[in-house]
Amino acid sequence: MTTKERGDESLIIVMSKEAEAGDVEHVVERLRDIGAEAHISEGRFRTVIGALGDRAVIQQLPWEAFPGVERAVPVLKPFKFVSRDFQEDDSVVDVGGVLVGGGHFAPIAGPCAVESREQLFASAAAVAKAGAKILRGDAFKPRTSPYSFQGLEEKGLELLTEARDEFGLPFVAEAVDPRDVELVASYADILRVGTRNMANFTLLSELGKQSKPVMLKRGLTATIEEWLNAAEYIYKEGNHDIIMCERGIRTFETATRNTLDISAVPVIKGLSHLPIIVDPSHSGGRKELVAPLTRVAVAAGADGFMVDVHPAPETALVDGAQAILPDEFAEIMNDVRDLCAVMGLEL
Amino acid sequence: MTTKERGDESLIIVMSKEAEAGDVEHVVERLRDIGAEAHISEGRFRTVIGALGDRAVIQQLPWEAFPGVERAVPVLKPFKFVSRDFQEDDSVVDVGGVLVGGGHFAPIAGPCAVESREQLFASAAAVAKAGAKILRGDAFKPRTSPYSFQGLEEKGLELLTEARDEFGLPFVAEAVDPRDVELVASYADILRVGTRNMANFTLLSELGKQSKPVMLKRGLTATIEEWLNAAEYIYKEGNHDIIMCERGIRTFETATRNTLDISAVPVIKGLSHLPIIVDPSHSGGRKELVAPLTRVAVAAGADGFMVDVHPAPETALVDGAQAILPDEFAEIMNDVRDLCAVMGLEL
Amino acid sequence: MTTKERGDESLIIVMSKEAEAGDVEHVVERLRDIGAEAHISEGRFRTVIGALGDRAVIQQLPWEAFPGVERAVPVLKPFKFVSRDFQEDDSVVDVGGVLVGGGHFAPIAGPCAVESREQLFASAAAVAKAGAKILRGDAFKPRTSPYSFQGLEEKGLELLTEARDEFGLPFVAEAVDPRDVELVASYADILRVGTRNMANFTLLSELGKQSKPVMLKRGLTATIEEWLNAAEYIYKEGNHDIIMCERGIRTFETATRNTLDISAVPVIKGLSHLPIIVDPSHSGGRKELVAPLTRVAVAAGADGFMVDVHPAPETALVDGAQAILPDEFAEIMNDVRDLCAVMGLEL
Amino acid sequence: MTTKERGDESLIIVMSKEAEAGDVEHVVERLRDIGAEAHISEGRFRTVIGALGDRAVIQQLPWEAFPGVERAVPVLKPFKFVSRDFQEDDSVVDVGGVLVGGGHFAPIAGPCAVESREQLFASAAAVAKAGAKILRGDAFKPRTSPYSFQGLEEKGLELLTEARDEFGLPFVAEAVDPRDVELVASYADILRVGTRNMANFTLLSELGKQSKPVMLKRGLTATIEEWLNAAEYIYKEGNHDIIMCERGIRTFETATRNTLDISAVPVIKGLSHLPIIVDPSHSGGRKELVAPLTRVAVAAGADGFMVDVHPAPETALVDGAQAILPDEFAEIMNDVRDLCAVMGLEL
Repeated sequence: MTTKERGDESLIIVMSKEAEAGDVEHVVERLRDIGAEAHISEGRFRTVIGALGDRAVIQQLPWEAFPGVERAVPVLKPFKFVSRDFQEDDSVVDVGGVLVGGGHFAPIAGPCAVESREQLFASAAAVAKAGAKILRGDAFKPRTSPYSFQGLEEKGLELLTEARDEFGLPFVAEAVDPRDVELVASYADILRVGTRNMANFTLLSELGKQSKPVMLKRGLTATIEEWLNAAEYIYKEGNHDIIMCERGIRTFETATRNTLDISAVPVIKGLSHLPIIVDPSHSGGRKELVAPLTRVAVAAGADGFMVDVHPAPETALVDGAQAILPDEFAEIMNDVRDLCAVMGLEL
Repeated sequence: MTTKERGDESLIIVMSKEAEAGDVEHVVERLRDIGAEAHISEGRFRTVIGALGDRAVIQQLPWEAFPGVERAVPVLKPFKFVSRDFQEDDSVVDVGGVLVGGGHFAPIAGPCAVESREQLFASAAAVAKAGAKILRGDAFKPRTSPYSFQGLEEKGLELLTEARDEFGLPFVAEAVDPRDVELVASYADILRVGTRNMANFTLLSELGKQSKPVMLKRGLTATIEEWLNAAEYIYKEGNHDIIMCERGIRTFETATRNTLDISAVPVIKGLSHLPIIVDPSHSGGRKELVAPLTRVAVAAGADGFMVDVHPAPETALVDGAQAILPDEFAEIMNDVRDLCAVMGLEL
Repeated sequence: MTTKERGDESLIIVMSKEAEAGDVEHVVERLRDIGAEAHISEGRFRTVIGALGDRAVIQQLPWEAFPGVERAVPVLKPFKFVSRDFQEDDSVVDVGGVLVGGGHFAPIAGPCAVESREQLFASAAAVAKAGAKILRGDAFKPRTSPYSFQGLEEKGLELLTEARDEFGLPFVAEAVDPRDVELVASYADILRVGTRNMANFTLLSELGKQSKPVMLKRGLTATIEEWLNAAEYIYKEGNHDIIMCERGIRTFETATRNTLDISAVPVIKGLSHLPIIVDPSHSGGRKELVAPLTRVAVAAGADGFMVDVHPAPETALVDGAQAILPDEFAEIMNDVRDLCAVMGLEL
Repeated sequence: MTTKERGDESLIIVMSKEAEAGDVEHVVERLRDIGAEAHISEGRFRTVIGALGDRAVIQQLPWEAFPGVERAVPVLKPFKFVSRDFQEDDSVVDVGGVLVGGGHFAPIAGPCAVESREQLFASAAAVAKAGAKILRGDAFKPRTSPYSFQGLEEKGLELLTEARDEFGLPFVAEAVDPRDVELVASYADILRVGTRNMANFTLLSELGKQSKPVMLKRGLTATIEEWLNAAEYIYKEGNHDIIMCERGIRTFETATRNTLDISAVPVIKGLSHLPIIVDPSHSGGRKELVAPLTRVAVAAGADGFMVDVHPAPETALVDGAQAILPDEFAEIMNDVRDLCAVMGLEL
C-alpha cells in the first residue's frame, strides 16, 4: 500500500509579505527534492504555494523554519486509511461473533482485573445474565506505582477462557508488552491497548500483525488526531479491525478522575469509519457516575460501552472505587435498552 | 444568615511525625483565636486535630504553612447554601412562568446576539414553533477582541421584549457590567452571567440583590467547586433562583472549541440542589455537534439546554460557526421529546 | 485612531477541492459587503482568497461555516497597537518615578493584602531596605469563596499612601470593580488587573481611560494571544502605559498552585513592545519556590518581579502559604543583583 | 528489598460523621487482612484511623468506596527509594566519565535524530568545541505519524560511537522497545526514555536491569508524582543511576509546542535526591526560545540541559523548527558559563 495521493494538495505554504523571490524558489526546490510538486499562486502581497505529493513526506519537513515562510497549513489530515475519506461506510468489527459498529451496539462488562476464579465467574455470570455481549477482564495490569498488583498473567488468561466457555461471552484483555502480544492473542477475542500505551508504537506495530481485532483506548492526553494516527499505525500493518475507546482525558478538574470527552464520539464518527465505544468507569472514576455516563454514551451515538463490574468492589485489587455491583449493571442495562430503541441501535 | 455550623468539624489538620508538642499547641491556640474549637486525637505516630466552627474563617488560614503541619484536609465544602446538605430537595426555578428543575425540562433557543429585528424575529418564530420554552439573545456581548461587535445594548433588550410579547417566550439575556444589571433586569426574565464573568464577584453580588433569576455559566477554566462557590455568592445576597449552565471547559483538545464536561451534570446534581442545563453550541463550537451534544444533555439528566439558532448563520456577527438553522432545531426537538420520555422528564 | 491597514492581507481563505465557482463568488461578495478587498489565486486544485481590509471586521466572520471553505487562516494577529509590528522599540513605563522595561528592572514586594498598619509598615520597611522599588498591597480582594476576607477597601488605600510617604516607594493596588477604578486611581501609582478580571472588558475599558499605568495579570487560563487582546482593550482607550504580569496558568499539575509559564516572557517580548514581569508567589503558591522562580524570571529576560512578603505569614488573612519573610526577601535580592549584572539589566 | 516501613502511618482514613461502629470495624478488619495495623482516634464527631504497614499494599485499596469513609489521605508518597527521605544527599550520576548532579552541571547537545555521518559529525564537532560535555542523537525515533522518519537504527548507534571516539563526548540515545534495550545499552553511555514511554512499565523494568544510567523524560501529561513513580520502577530493579529530564507538559497554550514547567526543577530537588536537567528545545519547540529557556534552566538550579543542534535545520528530518545552529549554541554557552558562576555550579 502507498500513501501517495494524486490530485490533491496536502499542504498550503503561505509566504510572508517580506519574502523574496529566492525564498519562494528555495521552498519550491526543496519540494522537488522530496518528489513533490509545487503550485505557486501569486497574490498582491503574498505568494501561496500548494504542495502536492506524498503527504507523509511533505508534512514532516519544518516549513515554518524556512526563510520567508509565514505559515504552513496542512489541508489533508496526517492519517489516511482510517479516515472517512478513504472509506465512506462504517467499519463493522467482528469480536468472536459479536458485531460492533454500523448500528450494532455492544455492552462490554466484567472485572477490571482478574483476581481469582470466584471473582471472575461471579462477575461474568451476572453480566451475561443482564445482557452484556463481551466480557472484560485483565491479566496484565500496567500500574503507576511499581508496588501495585500487576495481574495474574497467563493464569488470568486461562480463567478468562474458561469463563468464555461457561457463559458464552467472547472476551477483551489488555496486551502490555510487545513480547506478550502473541500470548494474549492466543487466548483473547480482542486485544486492548491501554491508555498509557496509546503512543507505544512498537506495541501498535506488533498488534497490527495479529489476526485478532484491537481495541485502542485514547491516551490520557492525546488529541483526537494523535489517537487516529495511532490507529493508522495498526491499520497500515494489515490489521483493519480496530475499535476506538474514549475513556476520559486529563484536565484541571479534580471532581472526576478524568474528564469524559463525549464530543469525541461524534467527532470520530465524522473523521473516521472506525467504531467507537465509551468507558464510563475509567472516565469518571466513581461508581455513582457509571449510570449517567453510560446513558450519555448511547445518546452520543457510540457503538458500545465498557464498564467494571465487581461482585465486591471494596475488595477489588484495582480501581475498586469505580466498580459497580451486578445489580447496578442490570439496572443500567434497562436504561440502555430504552435509549438504544430511541437511537435506532441494534442491541 | 450565618455560616456558623454546630456539630461538625470542617477541617482535619494532620500533624507530621516530627511535630513537637509546641507545634500542636500553636495550632490549637490559633484556632481558639479565631473562635473555633480544636479536637485533638493522638495516634501512635501523629496527632490529628479536628477544627470545629465557622468553616469560612477556619478554611482561609494557611495551615500547611504552620510548623509541624503535614496536611490540612477540608471535610466540609467551602460552599453551604447551594449544597444538597443544606437543602435536600431539588430547587425549581420559575423563569417568567416556565419551570426549570425538579423534573421540568426547558429547551432554550435563539440567536447568540441580537443583530436586528428581522434576525431576532425569524429565529424566535422558528424556535417557538418547534417547542422552545425560553428565548435566548444577547444585547451586550463581551468579546475577546476589542474590535468585534459588542451588541445592540438597550435597543437589543427592547427588541427581545417585543419578541417575548409576540411569541410568548420569556427571555434570557447577559449582564456584563455591574452598572447595567438593573437595566437588563428591568427587561429580561432571567439574567445570564457569561463564562468570562463567572469569577467577577462584584457582578455576582449585584445579581444577588435582584429579584429576577440568574443563569450562571461555568468559567472556561473553573473547577466545579469554584463554580458552586460563585453560585454561593449570588445565593448569600438573597437571590436563591439560580440555574447552573455547563458550557465546556478549556483543555488541550483543539478539535472542538471547548471540551463539554458532561460529567459535571451528575456531579452537580449530587453536590447541589440547583438545576443545571447544558449549552451544546458554545461547548462544541461547531454546528454538526449541536444535535449529539443536546441528546447527551438529556441523557445525563440535565434540566434543559440552550442553543444558538440563526436564520442565516454565515451572516451572524457572533459565533456563526456554531449556529444551527431553524429546521435543524426542529429535528433536534424531535429527539429531545423521545429522550425526555425515556428519562421521565416533563417537557 | 483606526485599525484599518493598507497593504496587507489579514486572512487567507483556502477553498476546498470540491468548491464550486459560486462558492468562491459568495465569499468574495461577502468580503465586498464588509468593505474588504479579495485577492483570488487559482491553484491547480484549489482556490485561495486573500482578504485585505480592516482585520477586526474580516476576522470576526464565520468563514469556515461558508459553503466550499476548507480553512480560514489569519495571517495578522487580532491585536495591533500592542504588537512589535506597530512599535519596534521597547515601551518603558514610569510608575511614580520608577522606570520599568527597556532594560530597567523592577523588584516589587509587599504583603498580598493590606491587613493592618503594623503588618503593612513592617513589610514595607523591610522590602524598602532590601532594595524593592515598588510596594505591593491590596485593599480590595476578589476571593473565590464569599466567606473569605475581602480587603480593607479605602482604609487600605490610605495606609498604602502613608507607607509610600514613609518609605519612598510608589505602590501598586488592584482595581476590582469598574465603579472603584477612579477611587483606586486617586491613590495608587499603578492599577493592577487581577487574574480573574483579565477578560472583564468593562473593567479594562475603564482602566483605559485613566492616566495611571496598568499592570495586567494573565488570566488563569488565558492564551498569550488572549492576554495581548486584553492589553489592546486598554491601549485603544488611550492608556498606553501597560505592564504585563505572568503569574502561572492552570494545568493538570497539582504539586504547584499554578504552572509558571516562563516561556511567556520571551514569547511576549517577541510579539509585543510592552514590559513583562513575573509573580513567583502566585505561580508556585509555596514559599520555598519563591527564590528559584524569582531567579528564573531574571534569566528569562523579564523586566521585574512581584512577590508577597509578610512579617508573619501564618497569620496572613490571604495566601499565607506563599508569603516569604523579610529576611528571605533580602537573600533573594542578593541573587537578583548578581543575575541582573549577567543579564545587563539596570536594577 | 522491601517497601515495608515500620514506625509511620502511610494513610489517614477520616470516617464520616454518620459512620457507625460497624463501619469502623469493617475498615480495621480489612487493614488487618492485608497485614497492616490500624490506630484509631475517636474525635468528638468523627473517628480517624491511621494505617501502618506496607504503603504499597495499603494505598492501593479503594478506601473511599467503603461505607462510612469520608476521605482517605495518603501521608507518605507512593515512591520511596527515589525520595529525599530515603537518601538525603544528592545523587551524582557518572555518564561515561562526566558527572551530573550534586553541583556538577552538564550541557548536552547534538542533533535530534542521527540522519547521516556528515550531519552527526558536523553537529558533534561544533558542540564539542563550544563546551558540551555529552552528545545527544537518536537512532530510534518513535513518531506520532507512522509515515514519519523512524531513525537509522543500529547504523545510527554505530555512527554515534564513532563520533564519541572522534570528539571525546559520551552519548545519550533513546531506547524505544524493550527488545532493543540491550542493543542500545551496548553502544550508548546513557539510555534515554522518551516522553511517550514514561509510563511504559515493561520498558522501565528492562532499563532497571541494565548497568548503564538512564535519562527519564517526563511524560507529556505526567504529574511530578507519576514521574517519580516511573523513576521508582527503574530504581527498584537495581539501577540507581537515573537523571530526570523536564521537557514541557501539555497545556491549553498553543504559542509554544509544550509548556516548560520550570517549577518542576525545585519541586523535584525538594522531593528527590536524583539529578534533573531541562530540555529547552522540545519544551518550546521554536529555535528562538532555546536561549532564554536554557538560561532559565541554570537559574532554576537544574543539573544540566539538553538541546538540539543541527548544521542545517531546514533539512532536518525531525523537529527542524526547534534546532539551533552551531554558532547559536556557542553563544548560549557563553551565557551558561556566566550563570553557572553565579549559581556556584561546576561546569
